[in-house]
Amino acid sequence: MSLLVTGSIGIDTVRTPHGTSTDCLGGSSIYFSMAASFFAPVRLVGVIGDDCPFDLAKVFEGRDVDLTGLEVRTGSRTFRWAGTYHGSMNERTTDKLELNVLAEAPPKVPDVYRDSEFVFLANTAPALQLQLLEQVDKPVFVAADTMNCWIENELDDLKKLLTKINCLIINDDEARQLAGRTNLVKAAKTILQMGPGTVIVKKGEHGSLLADREGNEFVLPAFPAEQVTDPTGAGDSFAGGLMGHLAQTGQTDFDCLKTAVAYGTIVASFTIADFSLEALTAAARSDIDQRLELFRTLTRF
Amino acid sequence: MSLLVTGSIGIDTVRTPHGTSTDCLGGSSIYFSMAASFFAPVRLVGVIGDDCPFDLAKVFEGRDVDLTGLEVRTGSRTFRWAGTYHGSMNERTTDKLELNVLAEAPPKVPDVYRDSEFVFLANTAPALQLQLLEQVDKPVFVAADTMNCWIENELDDLKKLLTKINCLIINDDEARQLAGRTNLVKAAKTILQMGPGTVIVKKGEHGSLLADREGNEFVLPAFPAEQVTDPTGAGDSFAGGLMGHLAQTGQTDFDCLKTAVAYGTIVASFTIADFSLEALTAAARSDIDQRLELFRTLTRF
Repeated sequence: MSLLVTGSIGIDTVRTPHGTSTDCLGGSSIYFSMAASFFAPVRLVGVIGDDCPFDLAKVFEGRDVDLTGLEVRTGSRTFRWAGTYHGSMNERTTDKLELNVLAEAPPKVPDVYRDSEFVFLANTAPALQLQLLEQVDKPVFVAADTMNCWIENELDDLKKLLTKINCLIINDDEARQLAGRTNLVKAAKTILQMGPGTVIVKKGEHGSLLADREGNEFVLPAFPAEQVTDPTGAGDSFAGGLMGHLAQTGQTDFDCLKTAVAYGTIVASFTIADFSLEALTAAARSDIDQRLELFRTLTRF
Repeated sequence: MSLLVTGSIGIDTVRTPHGTSTDCLGGSSIYFSMAASFFAPVRLVGVIGDDCPFDLAKVFEGRDVDLTGLEVRTGSRTFRWAGTYHGSMNERTTDKLELNVLAEAPPKVPDVYRDSEFVFLANTAPALQLQLLEQVDKPVFVAADTMNCWIENELDDLKKLLTKINCLIINDDEARQLAGRTNLVKAAKTILQMGPGTVIVKKGEHGSLLADREGNEFVLPAFPAEQVTDPTGAGDSFAGGLMGHLAQTGQTDFDCLKTAVAYGTIVASFTIADFSLEALTAAARSDIDQRLELFRTLTRF
């Protein structure tokens, strides 16, 4: 089934204890699309300036990623981010943030995307996520990400968004902040009462938690990766693998969501093995399926 | 099969965001013995002063815990610890530490315990762990715990201990410190090269990692507990459930170790639901098995 993603496209400079990657391709919609493209055709909505050095048609060559929704805005500059990961890479500091074109009017969802069935609204202002969502006619399953600054400053919009989506995918700290509860299981339940039928809490190297309003729960560790070079894009790759599996199967029951979370975990484990999209693009679908089977063995008792 | 534990017995005062428990029974050998007693007969080696207000025969009444190795030392004072857990209870500060009888000569392993097959050496000075282990004739499977102060100050003794045991059970931060590596999977592999055939890394609310020298790995999240009142004793309860299952089955192959880690996780999830031994002693073996089955469902995809 059709899978739409709205999110950022950026030029990233990333420093980790393993090295530095200067002016590489990044952004939530990029990681999401690359991850999801292993599973289902992807429709991308995003905007870049005319300074962007990347040919996205070439980046996604051979993959079913529709770039009709990519706007190259003349006279604008592409979003730029620079960050440094420290120690065991659970902490990062932002060295530079230039919103550039992301601070201007948002891109439009093309009319040919209006019939999209699966939708992922990557992290941005919730009012903007709502506006993008309104341009899709009858989505079957909508998931969204958010972050601390919207919880702090745009809570009313965020709460409205939560009543319009099926699934919130959120970091552990932000889940605690949004719910006002320290216990993650309780925090997930509180968020479910705010609207979405499903919530997925990302705990980085500690795995994830899935819960729905029917009382189903699922907990999964991260894949025990030995090679963690750059965690950038792990969360959006996770969402891409997850939504890609749902769109591929066309199902959203709890068993399917569990497998989707496992696929998201595995796809993210490829992303973090190298800088930018290097390791993810080098993987084949068979590598992903093989690692998923290994993961089953590694977690089953 | 026979299961021996050597460790502390203490009078604890614990403060958590959920309340305070003053002068309650604690100590590694106590939590371990209670946890393991659901699975196999336990032989306890520990020492208290004549000031100890607890009747351990009564505490373990109806359970197969042999107290032949309990020494009540006249004129000595029992170990005391007071601590406070903060926020989401991942951090704790020590408010008071009185080693008392633990700073004197160690208890002796009774001759009738010399034939013990499974042995758990709870955290103490590694030289003391070695000395206790020498009093067991031909153990089948020996596991030990350790902590940061021994890694920092008694590394030679600890390294010697590691060549004499089958399994090290260690916290994540301490595994990183001992191995000198931030990646936990790599840290586990480094520790395996130091001697033990198996290493189990405890990550608290984030679950655990099991690895052996044959290259087998197993990762498990924690049980998604909603009620966390007091984490004291979680690690020793984990070890108790784990070693109890091994002693009950008499097996130590990797499949059995995986199930043992799962049992340890479940037993610990009972311990943390209330102060001291309250919730653990209130559980029945059938409650533990029922929660283990639920945990299988919660983690299987």
